[in-house]
Amino acid sequence: MSRRKRLVVVGGVAAGMSAASRARRLDPDLEIEVFERSGFVSYGSCGLPYFVGGLVREPGELVVYTPEFFRQKRDIAVHVQHEVTAIHPDEHYLEVRDLVTGRQRQVEFDTLILATGARPVEPPIPGLDLKGVHFLRLVEDGIAIREHARALVAQGRRKAVVIGGGYVGLEMAEALVAVGMEVAIVERLPQVMPNLDREMAELVHDELRRHGVALYLGEGARAVLGDGGRVRALDTDARTLPADLVLVAVGVRPNSELAEAAGIELGAGRAIKVDEFMRTSHPAVYAAGDCADTVHRVSGRRAYIPLGTTANKQGRVAGENAAGGHARFPGVLGTAIVKVFDLGVARTGLTTREAALAGLEAAATTIRHGSRAHYYPGAGKLHVRLVHGPDGRLLGAQMAGPVDAVLRIDALVAALHAGMTVDQLYELDLAYAPPFAPVWDPVLVAARQAMNAIRGVAD
Amino acid sequence: MSRRKRLVVVGGVAAGMSAASRARRLDPDLEIEVFERSGFVSYGSCGLPYFVGGLVREPGELVVYTPEFFRQKRDIAVHVQHEVTAIHPDEHYLEVRDLVTGRQRQVEFDTLILATGARPVEPPIPGLDLKGVHFLRLVEDGIAIREHARALVAQGRRKAVVIGGGYVGLEMAEALVAVGMEVAIVERLPQVMPNLDREMAELVHDELRRHGVALYLGEGARAVLGDGGRVRALDTDARTLPADLVLVAVGVRPNSELAEAAGIELGAGRAIKVDEFMRTSHPAVYAAGDCADTVHRVSGRRAYIPLGTTANKQGRVAGENAAGGHARFPGVLGTAIVKVFDLGVARTGLTTREAALAGLEAAATTIRHGSRAHYYPGAGKLHVRLVHGPDGRLLGAQMAGPVDAVLRIDALVAALHAGMTVDQLYELDLAYAPPFAPVWDPVLVAARQAMNAIRGVAD
Repeated sequence: MSRRKRLVVVGGVAAGMSAASRARRLDPDLEIEVFERSGFVSYGSCGLPYFVGGLVREPGELVVYTPEFFRQKRDIAVHVQHEVTAIHPDEHYLEVRDLVTGRQRQVEFDTLILATGARPVEPPIPGLDLKGVHFLRLVEDGIAIREHARALVAQGRRKAVVIGGGYVGLEMAEALVAVGMEVAIVERLPQVMPNLDREMAELVHDELRRHGVALYLGEGARAVLGDGGRVRALDTDARTLPADLVLVAVGVRPNSELAEAAGIELGAGRAIKVDEFMRTSHPAVYAAGDCADTVHRVSGRRAYIPLGTTANKQGRVAGENAAGGHARFPGVLGTAIVKVFDLGVARTGLTTREAALAGLEAAATTIRHGSRAHYYPGAGKLHVRLVHGPDGRLLGAQMAGPVDAVLRIDALVAALHAGMTVDQLYELDLAYAPPFAPVWDPVLVAARQAMNAIRGVAD
Repeated sequence: MSRRKRLVVVGGVAAGMSAASRARRLDPDLEIEVFERSGFVSYGSCGLPYFVGGLVREPGELVVYTPEFFRQKRDIAVHVQHEVTAIHPDEHYLEVRDLVTGRQRQVEFDTLILATGARPVEPPIPGLDLKGVHFLRLVEDGIAIREHARALVAQGRRKAVVIGGGYVGLEMAEALVAVGMEVAIVERLPQVMPNLDREMAELVHDELRRHGVALYLGEGARAVLGDGGRVRALDTDARTLPADLVLVAVGVRPNSELAEAAGIELGAGRAIKVDEFMRTSHPAVYAAGDCADTVHRVSGRRAYIPLGTTANKQGRVAGENAAGGHARFPGVLGTAIVKVFDLGVARTGLTTREAALAGLEAAATTIRHGSRAHYYPGAGKLHVRLVHGPDGRLLGAQMAGPVDAVLRIDALVAALHAGMTVDQLYELDLAYAPPFAPVWDPVLVAARQAMNAIRGVAD
């Protein structure tokens, strides 16, 4: 008597639910079970800062689909508050605990997709267990931070310290300012956003300061200090900052322990190593999303760059292949975009520093040019930095300027993908009309400047 | 005794002043003279609708540099209100009339650059000489229309009719609404913006009607009717529309008569035929800007697509080569972008219809998808239409949606330039963050849909 083949997905957020849905789409006969440790599935965790800041009113707005939707419309059995505690790929089963009842059971699978995500890094400093110290990962975290911040503001206790100047730290700094807190960012490196070259990061510093955010750069967090079990300050290498609330946002690490314990190979950043088909080192196991690594298309090296859009794409590929398909994920350029108050910041490919680390000879050209026709209201200045090889091949790009100007990064993404040189970039027939761009688009101005620099001529 | 070599430029707006400036940059010894028929040089004529609508307050804001600037800072002799009446390339001189004094003289040149621009097409209907009938080309036209429209509104005479639904017609309709007029657009074709496929143009129709603009599509203008020498109505094939002001915006034609009379070859749209170095058929004469044709990079055919950004680029190339350089202009994709009230519209490459005219087999895929994360405030729906060959090669793209979403067209420009297929487009690591894009960017959704359509599978 043949039973239906069973696909089990561990993790029910971006990659997991994309994988499950794609597998169902291709194979109506497959039995599909998803185990999710938290109480929510299929939500946009990238939206949490906007929920904290109040732009998004209800956590439910972040949820794309509910477990019931998946059960009823897609015949996918979703188990929230179920933690997978061990996987046994050779024996084709895993162990799972119902976090509500405590009951443990074994679940067999034919194919397994690991979409276990990532979790915030906990820096090795004392005091992280104090009340008022937060991490941001789950919807539950967002709710807790928002409630706490609002309660503090109502009491006139407004001091917030964000440890970490990555994009989550920056988005959360803005959110905390929006709810009325006075925010300081403590960053160990001499700049925020380490995936920008210093010159571009300085523009972000200016914008943060313009909005009243205090920056303590090149200062490590040493200890969170408490008072009666509650946070009251943060000690850095250089000073003590009073704090009613501390948010720790020093990056994430992949939840790869289940895989590692099962003997599955890890790759970049200790994420689960996958090939372009999202296959792990075990033939019955795929991995996708923030727990998996990938390939950087410019450097050709393995990279760990967790991001919501990548998670969705990888999940879709894993689900398709788990259902017998042959989809591939082509790798990333490390594209990122972030709004920091009124400044848009975007980047793709390699920075000067990343190029050097990848052993590539690189130079960079930075220009500042109008984002629209000079006479059109709301025109601002857009900074464009192009990183290129000595032969002119584009290696990366960074932008900072008006929020509505930086989606231009997508043109650079396509150019990088195509392996263009700065000369070819200069040939692009980019869009022009006064409300959108000046006659010489900043991208073209940057390309021309780069061409001149390479040839050693003035413009 | 050797004299300095002399470069003469006919026309002092975008192409002409770019050419003169570039030539000066490369050759400090060149004698450079520019003759401009109007009273202004180096202005952004694309900004005129925004001047009429009041977003730009003074005509001077549209001017980039004055004749004095060119004379003093760049040693370029600029003569405004000077009309060149004949050119004699073989004999290396031209005839020019001072429009103020009426004085005629001959000017010798070694090299000539024709940047004579274009002028509005005058449709063959009676009544165009009535007071209150306007064309838009020069700064002077913009001033006249603004003054006239404001005066009419002050008298409660609010009826404006725009003949022509191209982008100038649309921008001017919005401008006239902004100053308080009730606007109707009369367009001979069944849609506005003939460089969009019908399905996309319908979105523009909706937006115009939403803002109170009446559309009379598929109706030719037959006669402008007057009363005591002033316009009072427009007769179309189907009706009589009362009109206090009529704007005629049915396209432009190149000012190529000087060249033609001198035996210089004309090309697409009766514009001056140029090669990629902006050389005309006469070795001593270059042409650039709205008077010159170009090559469409997708169809490979000659095309006449006058646009400010192209004029600047071509002018720069002509100026460089006139000074002994070897720059080239690589052709266009027909990229265009326009704001119509709250709708952004953009296009590049070929429409379905243009592909058919170029003898290319083409299909199209249109999708509608969120422009930002669904939970982020201000998210709207972006329509993306991809035109592609049976092999998946991208031939063109069109977009309509939120104004801040359509700069994505630049990614399609780069993709087209690189000759990408829709499969390759789908691989792009486009930027994602909630304020800018949803996890699946609309461009990727469109690419996937196109892939599915080509393969005959459902998503």
